[in-house]
Amino acid sequence: MARSRLTPEREAELYAAVLDLLREVGYDALTMDAIAARTRSSKATLYRQWGSKPELVAHAMRHNKPIKLVDVDTGSLRGDFHAVMAHTDDCQMEKDSALMRGLFHAVHDSPDLLQALRELLIEPELNGLAEILQRAVDRGEVAADNPALKYVTHMLVGAIVARQLIEDRSPDRDFLTSYFDAVILPALGV
Amino acid sequence: MARSRLTPEREAELYAAVLDLLREVGYDALTMDAIAARTRSSKATLYRQWGSKPELVAHAMRHNKPIKLVDVDTGSLRGDFHAVMAHTDDCQMEKDSALMRGLFHAVHDSPDLLQALRELLIEPELNGLAEILQRAVDRGEVAADNPALKYVTHMLVGAIVARQLIEDRSPDRDFLTSYFDAVILPALGV
Repeated sequence: MARSRLTPEREAELYAAVLDLLREVGYDALTMDAIAARTRSSKATLYRQWGSKPELVAHAMRHNKPIKLVDVDTGSLRGDFHAVMAHTDDCQMEKDSALMRGLFHAVHDSPDLLQALRELLIEPELNGLAEILQRAVDRGEVAADNPALKYVTHMLVGAIVARQLIEDRSPDRDFLTSYFDAVILPALGV
Repeated sequence: MARSRLTPEREAELYAAVLDLLREVGYDALTMDAIAARTRSSKATLYRQWGSKPELVAHAMRHNKPIKLVDVDTGSLRGDFHAVMAHTDDCQMEKDSALMRGLFHAVHDSPDLLQALRELLIEPELNGLAEILQRAVDRGEVAADNPALKYVTHMLVGAIVARQLIEDRSPDRDFLTSYFDAVILPALGV
């Protein structure tokens, strides 16, 4: 795979620069030229490694995630969620929320970006979440036929979007922990 | 109040024309000139009656709602929700979802629109929902200290947004009814 020619350090540096630029100018105004200049790469390299701007941005967003859901396995559903939260930083969450809002604004005009975010960011998260929930079912914490199992993502997305839309605030650890205990665990019968 | 000079029929006709134009050109390209031409009004009249484009659009959206939550009172929480759904039409919901997506895209660049939507659309809905929930508490259906009470909006917003984002589908009656029974009632201990 072409991407393996970069060292992990160089890749991390490049992704960080992409996100910095994205925060500065927004997705629409972000150009491969600007990324090439900022990262002292050639545009040819960028296109060879990532194919397109949406894919590069989605890879940068995925790299930026502080914790992979799939790495979490504490032995209980509440424990798994608290482990995710323990690795999350409120300031970082606020910055990431602003980035995500900008990107979900941009997908309105860029189906390619939506597709790249679905493939590289949303689906891996959904799979990680599905594994956490499957382990809870296997342990007998959650009934296999609990009808809320297929709506956990909807509940989580709602927490994040409604917090911003209605309360005009970014989600933070206290809020998400309270929501998880008040809504998600009871709906799952835990 | 200046607005009372229009007959209800004329007002309804005008709001319908605003929403038609909004679907055709989107919020950013919608002009008071175009609304005046389409509705055979003068721009001066529009500004006198509604003050601004964001307020006119938010009024039109509010008028368009097929049912006011606050009018619903069946004697049970599940009954109230089913009454709301019974007055909802899947085709209309799909058209409304597309409109709302367009508007929530537009608020990114128009804080005035966000404020008008909050005042005229979101807050009345939140108040209507709060009344439905308060009656459920008064009847003893939901414990007054149930921690999920303050998150019912978040759960609902999540259902609608995640349905679109993850499943790429508009919410419909079957989906919302299933979500209500699987998530919202159990979280509220009903």
